[in-house]
Amino acid sequence: MPRVPYQELHCQLQRVLLHSGFTEERAALVARLFADNQRDGIYSHGLNRFPRFIASVRSRQVDIHATPSMVASLGALEQWDGKMGVGLWNAHVCMSRAIELARQFGMGGVGLRNTNHWMRGGAYGLQATDAGCIGICWTNTIPLLPPWGSAESKIGNNPLVIAVPRAAGPLLLDMALSQYSNGKLEVMRQQGRQLPIPGGYDDRGNLTRDPAAILASRRALPIGHWKGSALAVALDAVAALLSGGRSSHEIGKQGGEYGVSQVFIAINASALAGRNDAENIVNAIVNDLHTASSILDGEGVRYPGEGMLRIRQQSFESGVFVEEEQWNSLREM
Amino acid sequence: MPRVPYQELHCQLQRVLLHSGFTEERAALVARLFADNQRDGIYSHGLNRFPRFIASVRSRQVDIHATPSMVASLGALEQWDGKMGVGLWNAHVCMSRAIELARQFGMGGVGLRNTNHWMRGGAYGLQATDAGCIGICWTNTIPLLPPWGSAESKIGNNPLVIAVPRAAGPLLLDMALSQYSNGKLEVMRQQGRQLPIPGGYDDRGNLTRDPAAILASRRALPIGHWKGSALAVALDAVAALLSGGRSSHEIGKQGGEYGVSQVFIAINASALAGRNDAENIVNAIVNDLHTASSILDGEGVRYPGEGMLRIRQQSFESGVFVEEEQWNSLREM
Repeated sequence: MPRVPYQELHCQLQRVLLHSGFTEERAALVARLFADNQRDGIYSHGLNRFPRFIASVRSRQVDIHATPSMVASLGALEQWDGKMGVGLWNAHVCMSRAIELARQFGMGGVGLRNTNHWMRGGAYGLQATDAGCIGICWTNTIPLLPPWGSAESKIGNNPLVIAVPRAAGPLLLDMALSQYSNGKLEVMRQQGRQLPIPGGYDDRGNLTRDPAAILASRRALPIGHWKGSALAVALDAVAALLSGGRSSHEIGKQGGEYGVSQVFIAINASALAGRNDAENIVNAIVNDLHTASSILDGEGVRYPGEGMLRIRQQSFESGVFVEEEQWNSLREM
Repeated sequence: MPRVPYQELHCQLQRVLLHSGFTEERAALVARLFADNQRDGIYSHGLNRFPRFIASVRSRQVDIHATPSMVASLGALEQWDGKMGVGLWNAHVCMSRAIELARQFGMGGVGLRNTNHWMRGGAYGLQATDAGCIGICWTNTIPLLPPWGSAESKIGNNPLVIAVPRAAGPLLLDMALSQYSNGKLEVMRQQGRQLPIPGGYDDRGNLTRDPAAILASRRALPIGHWKGSALAVALDAVAALLSGGRSSHEIGKQGGEYGVSQVFIAINASALAGRNDAENIVNAIVNDLHTASSILDGEGVRYPGEGMLRIRQQSFESGVFVEEEQWNSLREM
């Protein structure tokens, strides 16, 4: 795979967005988010998703001119309507608003309804840490997993993000509640490989490491079995309540994933603890993890997000990794 | 096992607490929390933990006269010091405060340091739902699990609670981040039984369903392997930051689990959505789950907390289940 300068990647993305009717401001932000995801090694939500995103814009599934607006406020907690606009833009606006509320009240929360796919949830967690805040956010999705005790796909994999600021690199948890994403299962099936650990059930209800069997049964495993199943239900309920929007079962009845519900929380932790104290607390946790003896070949124990930050560093030094085919397609769009 | 009236259980607990020096108010609350846990079927943190709790009081590990106090405020976010007091009392006071803040600002958060074991975290989530709020809380613990990539116990199992109000019975997620608790592993070992799914590693690093092997290796499994490991680190960092208190690695160096850090968040969701709208949203999620076809013998698919509410109902109707030995010990205390 070739490497390209970040700026060139950003320019190409921005060009296509402007050509698709985005305003200058929105094109710049959306291009930055897609380019950042690729730069950080989140290939599942970088260049490979961009053509599908542009198709959703051109088919008018996504309204690129919609401006999210506040519909209710209780002070530190607000409800916003995303008006079926661009998921990345809406998410950015709502995390910005949560950060403003956190500066004013110590913490702030925004429930966002009628929005669309935010691509990489971690981006909005990092937006909070860039502003010196803890960021917590999640989204619901179409039903993708069976709840505990059933073989029917009824619950979302509802990605959850927790980001903690740190000068030497933030801690970033960014996880869907399925053990493996569908994308990962598909790649492993194509490569004819077994999963390292069971990722779901086969058609007879047995746990399996065979990605083809899981894709066929549509019974991917929630993390921690009954625990991830319950967590998915709880996150969906809170997202629907705070946004006044759709919950997963309603999204599933639409025949497509749109109009999802999201939650954005920012917490001004360093203002409570003092910036130096906050740094010390997080650094001590990182340092302790780094003292753990590793059982991985040639790899130390890492804090959440550490691997991503290493890929980012490589991207700065040597350019951003792109799949040749994806890169050529982008240049021709 | 015999059943006893709730009121009799409460009286016996309260008597022992008063005899141990608790004030009337604190004895009433702590007795209620232990009795509620037993009533709700949380036998791991009910009657069986009470003698150990009283021992910690009598040995002065826990200061029953300590009064938690606010040390910093940013409006909707506060930091409190638990002063090594009674964990159940401190947690109740801090969730009460978070609820007050939620009434004022829409949402409120409290970071609590220098506190002790709260017994059942779900109790404070239910405290929020009783007040019509969403309750989110978690605690850190001594290191109990290896982080992903290591065999060393470095991270807490950091129980996480998300509670959503609903007139017909709240949704309650109350889960530690280990696939099985140590208590569960011990019970299964005593009974000579294998776990239904792998719960950790044996000494050779292989996933196993043998509880004895997991207790011997001290390598219990975080939910979702690398995912639960990262979630545990993130929750620990946020708890230490918001409270200005100890993180898991510091608690682990003390030689005993005390002085932990906790987070309490209350969200006044029904004020945003309207109480009827909020009910409808949560009821629709519950109803959809109940339509899922079950693969469990004679059991339908349940929402988080549904099993607990059924046990509570039985306790109201027929009295609270107690282990005869535990009940006799309590009466003799």
